[in-house]
Amino acid sequence: MATINENYSKLAAGYLFPEIGRRVSAFTQENPDANVIRLGIGDVTEPLPAACVAAMHKAVDDMSVRDSFRGYGPEQGYEFLRTAIVEHAFKPRGVEIAADEVFISDGSKCDTGNILDIFGADNTVAVMDPVYPVYVDTNVMAGRTGAAGKDGRYEGLVYVPVTAENDFVPSLPDEPVDLIYLCYPNNPTGTVASRETLKQWVDYARAHDAIIFFDAAYEAYITDPEIPHSIYEIEGARDVAIEFRSFSKNAGFTGTRCAYTVIPKELTGKTSTGEDQPIHPLWNRRHCTKFNGVSYPIQRAAEAVFTPEGQQQINELIQFYLTNAGLIREGLESAGITVYGGVNAPYVWLKTPGGAGSWDFFDQLLSKGHLVGTPGSGFGAAGEGYFRLSAFNSRENIEQAVERFQRVVG
Amino acid sequence: MATINENYSKLAAGYLFPEIGRRVSAFTQENPDANVIRLGIGDVTEPLPAACVAAMHKAVDDMSVRDSFRGYGPEQGYEFLRTAIVEHAFKPRGVEIAADEVFISDGSKCDTGNILDIFGADNTVAVMDPVYPVYVDTNVMAGRTGAAGKDGRYEGLVYVPVTAENDFVPSLPDEPVDLIYLCYPNNPTGTVASRETLKQWVDYARAHDAIIFFDAAYEAYITDPEIPHSIYEIEGARDVAIEFRSFSKNAGFTGTRCAYTVIPKELTGKTSTGEDQPIHPLWNRRHCTKFNGVSYPIQRAAEAVFTPEGQQQINELIQFYLTNAGLIREGLESAGITVYGGVNAPYVWLKTPGGAGSWDFFDQLLSKGHLVGTPGSGFGAAGEGYFRLSAFNSRENIEQAVERFQRVVG
Repeated sequence: MATINENYSKLAAGYLFPEIGRRVSAFTQENPDANVIRLGIGDVTEPLPAACVAAMHKAVDDMSVRDSFRGYGPEQGYEFLRTAIVEHAFKPRGVEIAADEVFISDGSKCDTGNILDIFGADNTVAVMDPVYPVYVDTNVMAGRTGAAGKDGRYEGLVYVPVTAENDFVPSLPDEPVDLIYLCYPNNPTGTVASRETLKQWVDYARAHDAIIFFDAAYEAYITDPEIPHSIYEIEGARDVAIEFRSFSKNAGFTGTRCAYTVIPKELTGKTSTGEDQPIHPLWNRRHCTKFNGVSYPIQRAAEAVFTPEGQQQINELIQFYLTNAGLIREGLESAGITVYGGVNAPYVWLKTPGGAGSWDFFDQLLSKGHLVGTPGSGFGAAGEGYFRLSAFNSRENIEQAVERFQRVVG
Repeated sequence: MATINENYSKLAAGYLFPEIGRRVSAFTQENPDANVIRLGIGDVTEPLPAACVAAMHKAVDDMSVRDSFRGYGPEQGYEFLRTAIVEHAFKPRGVEIAADEVFISDGSKCDTGNILDIFGADNTVAVMDPVYPVYVDTNVMAGRTGAAGKDGRYEGLVYVPVTAENDFVPSLPDEPVDLIYLCYPNNPTGTVASRETLKQWVDYARAHDAIIFFDAAYEAYITDPEIPHSIYEIEGARDVAIEFRSFSKNAGFTGTRCAYTVIPKELTGKTSTGEDQPIHPLWNRRHCTKFNGVSYPIQRAAEAVFTPEGQQQINELIQFYLTNAGLIREGLESAGITVYGGVNAPYVWLKTPGGAGSWDFFDQLLSKGHLVGTPGSGFGAAGEGYFRLSAFNSRENIEQAVERFQRVVG
């Protein structure tokens, strides 16, 4: 009798974004002429950088000729890309990472989920609230939680509230935790962590033999020179942190698929008898056994991100989306809305007007403004009464969206 | 205190192919002038089909223009590819699969490993012996086994021997099993399963509420018209089988990365209280939460496999490798070696001459013939005394390899 993994039945609801998709699709079926503007899912809209396009064409040509054809590549990624990453993404910020500490993958969502494979079932997990739902759901699926309560919070997870009340600075947990998810610049709030905040968490992890999962998917959007881009800018972080990075949001690779995860060789976990075990060989083993490397043309496209042309082109993309974020911020503020984020991140996080519930406000914006955002409560109980707007769209749509928003709340 | 998944420490040895790589690399460092021919890992050598190259170029251009740019695609794969698969890979063989039962992924290795996520830890797993190591290792990592014995077999797994003694036809297990891996055409033995053999397993699964994981990565190599290409050609299989397929070996996508998994909607597993639960929504949930879809240009390349030009080009590729396999078979037989496979599969499975140990023969072939194969024992205890040669190489290298083999054993 083949039994299923019953932890899946604990999952409280559909994954957030499919639920948004369902509501939007129901609306557009009833209103086929409505020109809906989507600032919900954080998906880029502008074409790939020209340097990436050229590199991919060249790599496709490599695949068409026997002498330059590539079969199975190294599961961990090609040396050319791992080296380009350490040289260009870390070294200029004074962070020393070895190329073989970088594991190329097809996405940070995949990596933040799959990383759990190499950790014990008994770890206590801390997440911020609100939080990117994948961190929570993958722990539920892996059996590290009990059932969900009425507020959607799972028994056994430690939720750290991050709201206007604490100025979006998470407090260290009162109870001991083992695995800690930090995402900065933050999805969904668009806020950043100062060097001091990150240092507190690194010190906590060092003191408690905890491990930090640091999701830096949005680091390219940091405009404030005082804000760290990498957790490894904090002293001692190599002993306690794994960092996840992606080409999705800086180079527009959401449909192209390439990301990477850094596992420093110093990083250790514990056996049940309390011995230190290095994490790097565990992840290497998982990667080699359950993954087969990223497509060669895609790795060449990612490599091109680090050429001078590529860097200039992605900077233009990032500036474009940040200008969008600024327009949203200003437009909402001028309508009397309290907004956060949108300065060092492509997301604007706002308080719903009149204290409306997040999903109520979602339905209101959709039906009256034909505008799609993401309900804050979809990211966790502490997100209730908040709402996220993404800056990923054309300038025209952003300007339209701001006008519509103002009209709906006006 | 962050604890590791200690099941990883049960893994008896490094993954087979890295170990081969290590030995070859040590040899070539000592013998830098040796022209080593590699028939070890089953990796294609010929360029991508022209239809796929053209489709990928076009898709890369799509990504360079705002109007045709694609961000996040459906996690399950684009409709265009799912539909092409059901129309061209299944319908012509009388197999009805719905497009939404096909999940596009970046590899069958990944899927056969990840599928375990949705099943309970208490399932008893049956594998053939010899077997593709990933099936075993991923179960070890997921905690479904005890420790490895001296013969490399893990406590708790049910090994079904498949050797010359039983004519490579696996007997049904005496004890009840819940999850069954079948791979046909078989890696590593190159043998196939008749309709009758497959029907026995489907009937067994139906009688025992077991689920079959059917790995059909090599189906394109079947030359015998009586041999089923899909498990779903067997009546009743939709209720009990998941099928894994790949573009790696038919279209040369080992470095391009695209595969797919079929989950029929009728397929159910059991809850701990014995209720039926459909598997399709579980895999859909896993796919949406821990995967983000395959790169758009890659899916376009895969779609092109099913065009008339694509079909002709992959048939030429398959014929090329099958001719290689025939040359290996004949060359070895004429040297007095007993060989299996190589007719409906790109692998030749041979008895080591004089009953040599598999790794001894590996070392002998490498040092005397500068020729790399795969030791049968690397695929399981019952593979001891066997050896695998892959037909994936240039014609010139295959001819050279046969000569070298004959010289070493002569």
